[in-house]
Amino acid sequence: MPAITYELIKRCSQTGARAGIIHTPHGSFETPIFMPVGTQATVKTLSPEELKEMGAGIILSNTYHLFLRPGADLIREAGGLHSFMHWDRAILTDSGGFQVFSLGDLRKISEDGVAFRSHIDGSKKFLSPEIATKVQMDLGSDIIMAFDECIPYPADHDYAKKSTERTLRWARRCKDALVTDNQGLFGIVQGGIYEDLRRVCVDELIDMDLPGYAIGGLSVGEPKKLMYEVLDYTASALPANKPRYLMGVGTPDCLVEGVKRGIDMFDCVFPTRVGRNGTAMTWNGRLIIKNAEFEHDFHPIDENCSCYACRNYSRAYIRHLVRVNEIFGMRLLTIHNLHFLIDFMRKMRQAIIEDRFGEFYNEFAAKYVLK
Amino acid sequence: MPAITYELIKRCSQTGARAGIIHTPHGSFETPIFMPVGTQATVKTLSPEELKEMGAGIILSNTYHLFLRPGADLIREAGGLHSFMHWDRAILTDSGGFQVFSLGDLRKISEDGVAFRSHIDGSKKFLSPEIATKVQMDLGSDIIMAFDECIPYPADHDYAKKSTERTLRWARRCKDALVTDNQGLFGIVQGGIYEDLRRVCVDELIDMDLPGYAIGGLSVGEPKKLMYEVLDYTASALPANKPRYLMGVGTPDCLVEGVKRGIDMFDCVFPTRVGRNGTAMTWNGRLIIKNAEFEHDFHPIDENCSCYACRNYSRAYIRHLVRVNEIFGMRLLTIHNLHFLIDFMRKMRQAIIEDRFGEFYNEFAAKYVLK
Ligand SMILES: [Zn+2]
Ligand SMILES: [Zn+2]
Repeated sequence: MPAITYELIKRCSQTGARAGIIHTPHGSFETPIFMPVGTQATVKTLSPEELKEMGAGIILSNTYHLFLRPGADLIREAGGLHSFMHWDRAILTDSGGFQVFSLGDLRKISEDGVAFRSHIDGSKKFLSPEIATKVQMDLGSDIIMAFDECIPYPADHDYAKKSTERTLRWARRCKDALVTDNQGLFGIVQGGIYEDLRRVCVDELIDMDLPGYAIGGLSVGEPKKLMYEVLDYTASALPANKPRYLMGVGTPDCLVEGVKRGIDMFDCVFPTRVGRNGTAMTWNGRLIIKNAEFEHDFHPIDENCSCYACRNYSRAYIRHLVRVNEIFGMRLLTIHNLHFLIDFMRKMRQAIIEDRFGEFYNEFAAKYVLK
Repeated sequence: MPAITYELIKRCSQTGARAGIIHTPHGSFETPIFMPVGTQATVKTLSPEELKEMGAGIILSNTYHLFLRPGADLIREAGGLHSFMHWDRAILTDSGGFQVFSLGDLRKISEDGVAFRSHIDGSKKFLSPEIATKVQMDLGSDIIMAFDECIPYPADHDYAKKSTERTLRWARRCKDALVTDNQGLFGIVQGGIYEDLRRVCVDELIDMDLPGYAIGGLSVGEPKKLMYEVLDYTASALPANKPRYLMGVGTPDCLVEGVKRGIDMFDCVFPTRVGRNGTAMTWNGRLIIKNAEFEHDFHPIDENCSCYACRNYSRAYIRHLVRVNEIFGMRLLTIHNLHFLIDFMRKMRQAIIEDRFGEFYNEFAAKYVLK
């Protein structure tokens, strides 16, 4: 029995959307799901109990950051990331590839891996498929991501081809490096905006028979229309009996489009980051809570939201906290935004199960204001 | 029946220490007690539920800050501070006097009150005994503090005498301005380091028959020995049937000395401020959690502490959070420090009730390291 398995519960009759359950060594969670991001072994401002109260079943943490501070050795010594940060549900870790490739002049790429300088103190570091996998084994993540290059946008076909081929070679090395039964390795489909490359990448990853597949290299600056096109042919090529994860996507409109195309898992820093900056997410678009219009507004952020913030606090109070830079204001908005997204996914799932996802999609499009 | 009443439960047979209960319109709490400070309508980083979990029965908030932002009108419109900030236990508010007198060149004092410029935007403001009382009525605080001058240290006898006389005239004006039955006004004993002035001030305040008395103007830079001397003759002169509050004191050694002299209530930003800066308070003194010695320390801050932080997290994890500037680290240290102080007061109370406060005092002195 693999560490990570996917159970298909219901397929939408009109779109690619699907409802499922993913089983992990740290519990099962229903899909489609949004994963809150806990970059440095903490989902910024929140406690694990607060994440559980809103129904989070899995969180994401970042190998690059933990590799630098406090280091994988320390976390292994602590009994793994679950024990270190007091989170007993599932954890997915990225591979650090995205971050080290983003370092620009601070990194040097070879077939072996990526030599780079820490953005914190400039010290020399090295990540390779083997090291990134070993680090994630030390962290004890339930889902380990392969070490890859996220191809920037735009990139020409030649560059994208060479990069994708290396990503595939690296994925095989990650698979060879993983010597544990209670963690699962997800491969990452790259290929830029090129259908031929995406298809080759999908085929070769399927040959590797991994327990799940992610789609990387999207939401990196390309127009949304183009992203949805790539998603169309990439997601539909992935096997139906494995989970599909679209990396770095977390605005409601993109989540709906992803689910429509059969994506099961999403992550993004968006809800937590904008929360800390004073923005609340709602079914009607975003509220800039600092705005003067909310000064005397004693209603909750969202009358229909059942989150801790909406049950107990007014827009006027949260506005006050944000204006005077109180941390509790960031907490309340982070709670609301994550609760909103988790609830949003739950409602999509319910629509899929009742085979009315098409209606959900149309209602959402009519109501949601893109800003 | 006055809004605030004091019930004496037990008097120490060897010292001035006493255990009691204070009754307020928002519940009763046991004394001696430490009051967490929620300057801007929030105890920094924490939720009201977290304060309740650690047993906080009353918090303090600051008139000066709330007067400027969001303004007393808005909080009255919200139904008062309790409703605004979702805290249904007791609230004490200071008068703003301490802050406006600290503004230096930005303020001008007259018999009427203090004209000052906001430290935020430089706008002209005015606080007087009447306005400070009205603001606190709008806030709906259970305990309202009289508008006074906190005499700086050092100050000569002439200055201290004139200031104390004005503080007394202002206290009478506060009493006249208070036109509600469900809030209680505490007078503040000033007089600097001069026994004659402190005694006159106590006598005149007793004549006003207020429901409680605070001792102000201590812990403002004078040597601790001198502070305890002033406390000796001031606290013992206060009536036994009213609560006594020592303002701005919150380190364990000062709390023990205050309780020994019959003080019932304390407040200080110390535990929350040092917590946000990475310091944990313990029975053996302070831990600078960032220190390298805690890198591989997987024990809780304090093995014997039952707070949320100590139940679930290691020193190594909290050290990591503090080093990478994660807000959750500030939360955990704030929780621990306030829990520690509240528990510290509870243990003193228990010792008083069992008439072994003298032993408690000696044990504490032997164990606690002053840093
Ligand atoms: Zn909400
Ligand atoms: Zn503790």
